[in-house]
Amino acid sequence: MNLRRDDFAALDANDPLAPFLARFHRPKDLLYFDGNSLGMLPEAARRRAIETVEREWGQGLIESWTAARWIDLPEKVGGKIAKLIGAGADEVIATDSTSINIFKLLAGGLKLRPGRRVILTEAGNFPTDIYMAEGLAHLTGDVEVRLADDVVPAITEDVAVVMLTHVDYRSAALHDMAAVTSAAHAQGALVLWDLSHSAGALPVDLGEADFAVGCGYKFLNGGPGAPAYLYVARRWQKAFSQPLSGWLGHAAPFAFELHYRPAAGIKRAISGTPSVIAMSLLDASLDLLIEAGMHRIRDKAQKQMDLFAELVDARCTEAGLKLITPRDHAERGSHLSFSHPQGYELTQALRERKVVPDFRAPDVIRFGFTPLTLSYVDVWDAVGRLAEIWHDGLWRDPRYSVKAAVT
Amino acid sequence: MNLRRDDFAALDANDPLAPFLARFHRPKDLLYFDGNSLGMLPEAARRRAIETVEREWGQGLIESWTAARWIDLPEKVGGKIAKLIGAGADEVIATDSTSINIFKLLAGGLKLRPGRRVILTEAGNFPTDIYMAEGLAHLTGDVEVRLADDVVPAITEDVAVVMLTHVDYRSAALHDMAAVTSAAHAQGALVLWDLSHSAGALPVDLGEADFAVGCGYKFLNGGPGAPAYLYVARRWQKAFSQPLSGWLGHAAPFAFELHYRPAAGIKRAISGTPSVIAMSLLDASLDLLIEAGMHRIRDKAQKQMDLFAELVDARCTEAGLKLITPRDHAERGSHLSFSHPQGYELTQALRERKVVPDFRAPDVIRFGFTPLTLSYVDVWDAVGRLAEIWHDGLWRDPRYSVKAAVT
Repeated sequence: MNLRRDDFAALDANDPLAPFLARFHRPKDLLYFDGNSLGMLPEAARRRAIETVEREWGQGLIESWTAARWIDLPEKVGGKIAKLIGAGADEVIATDSTSINIFKLLAGGLKLRPGRRVILTEAGNFPTDIYMAEGLAHLTGDVEVRLADDVVPAITEDVAVVMLTHVDYRSAALHDMAAVTSAAHAQGALVLWDLSHSAGALPVDLGEADFAVGCGYKFLNGGPGAPAYLYVARRWQKAFSQPLSGWLGHAAPFAFELHYRPAAGIKRAISGTPSVIAMSLLDASLDLLIEAGMHRIRDKAQKQMDLFAELVDARCTEAGLKLITPRDHAERGSHLSFSHPQGYELTQALRERKVVPDFRAPDVIRFGFTPLTLSYVDVWDAVGRLAEIWHDGLWRDPRYSVKAAVT
Repeated sequence: MNLRRDDFAALDANDPLAPFLARFHRPKDLLYFDGNSLGMLPEAARRRAIETVEREWGQGLIESWTAARWIDLPEKVGGKIAKLIGAGADEVIATDSTSINIFKLLAGGLKLRPGRRVILTEAGNFPTDIYMAEGLAHLTGDVEVRLADDVVPAITEDVAVVMLTHVDYRSAALHDMAAVTSAAHAQGALVLWDLSHSAGALPVDLGEADFAVGCGYKFLNGGPGAPAYLYVARRWQKAFSQPLSGWLGHAAPFAFELHYRPAAGIKRAISGTPSVIAMSLLDASLDLLIEAGMHRIRDKAQKQMDLFAELVDARCTEAGLKLITPRDHAERGSHLSFSHPQGYELTQALRERKVVPDFRAPDVIRFGFTPLTLSYVDVWDAVGRLAEIWHDGLWRDPRYSVKAAVT
């Protein structure tokens, strides 16, 4: 490998997505590889924040529920997310957090599979997915949360819902969505996919999947703690019910009826009043992903990940970073994870040198690839700084070994 | 009653809370009596929105979870709300929506009262409170949601949780919190208070209450869909569990442990990632209420409500508006509700004349009193416009009879 910085600059010059870089607030000199944890701020979201706060809230006040169509935001934002995940606009709604939405769909799934009381997932799933299932099991008293290392062979006839995260948050390994969905259906089980690390990162095709959830603040660039979303396949929407049955999921929320009566379609998955300001920002941010197109985003991310991995091989040989993400394009999401005994210290040293990956205990450094906010030169420079840190022994600075919360 | 507009101007001139008016964005000429539905925008919240979006998110990115202390927001905001409701800072946390929080506390309450499977509430409670209880009952299969017209005599020994809204959203009638709490405890039941129409409106003293929830976007001025909060009395916090057990309620959220283990104290009531931007705005808004002081706010609101009701008596006699809110200070919250057969049309006509009350089906016009954003002259002018609309028959305009969603 004889690449030089100029070669990366040339890639940028020919990159059809390069104009998107200027539409985000990219702090000067910062090489940000953590868009998989918190996406960067689009200028459109910044403008929308001001518009929503100053004009819609400040001037429009209560009338904005109708005049600014706040009341339609969950469906409107859901419809945009639907475009990214191969769903119909009427199958997705933006609401609450990923955790809360998992609870709704697990409970709803169990109701659709009477007689079956097992939720099957993998031990390596993102913790909150497992914790929410445990909460449901604790509440109902008769639900089992079964953990498997390899899920497909573990799908037995007592399984009501198979819950998996499409892209592993640690290794970026990608599940074969169609194959798992099909295996679950063969046993009469439903499937719930967590798309938190795949929607906005790669083209998702939910196919025959029953349910999905995902997060708004990672690849969707919706801002810290942005609202999440959920998907219920059209064929289930009539029979689907969920226990967090708040007033805005009611068929006639402003009729103030005595008893709950679910709204038609996906709206019954809403609980309380939507977080209007947060949802408006997500609404604005999604337009950029849709405009760029998920296939172009995916192509650039794969190329950037290939180059990053090659550069690490070539320039950080002695560092002994072990790539735990598959090199095969078809088998990975949009981050590269390296394990290293001093992973924590390296992450801290990188951050001080203005390269931002993140760290996942016990020893994983994750570099997220978000092509709308990362140039090819960023890739070159990041590996350059990593190589320097290693060669100069900077990571040995005792400051970096202080364990603090790395979010 | 021989009051004139000058008398109201004199009241403003002597009002110690008058300087707060300029710290909110009050649209020119608008007489806004709907702060009980959506509070007005404080300038401090507008500035905080820009700060949080541009600097914390845009520039600080992922580091802001620690550097800007995003991770502490639920406790920080909870601590501020605690000051308004007579609670300890460690007893309140800001999180999710009122609906979601009701579910957590009802489920948690049932676990604390094994053998009891009844949730008792009143038929006039705000719908989402009842709907969430129904969702829990539907999920568990063995919980009964019992509705009573008069709750206290209906508290029997099979009741696990008595759930009431402190201030009735329709009539503004105020429950005697201490008396109901005591009656519930006498039967071994727990009490859950919904403070959505009382926190920020009047000094609340939770006393011996077990649980409470409330909304951030009404009297707390947190912005549309602002995060809600919940209270768990200190004595219950060790035993309390809740089923929406997401990762940020875990004892060690970033250790990514396999199984859920609740955080110590009130933090276990958190589920997913907090809505940082929305919560920051609420954080900024709360400072104004704390600075003004709930007793001063309450005194002014009572005076404004007295004057408003007297002016309606004197100047809108023929209109036949029927005050359904108690005149007794000790028996009402901070809005005045009038029933009128043409309540809907009158509300629409008022809004066109830039007086904003809201309407609750079938025939109730609500005027909310939020002393930090309402002057005494506003009170005079609002009743003046109401009298004009009635006398001139403006409300008969057929446009106003089109039933649209009035939120």
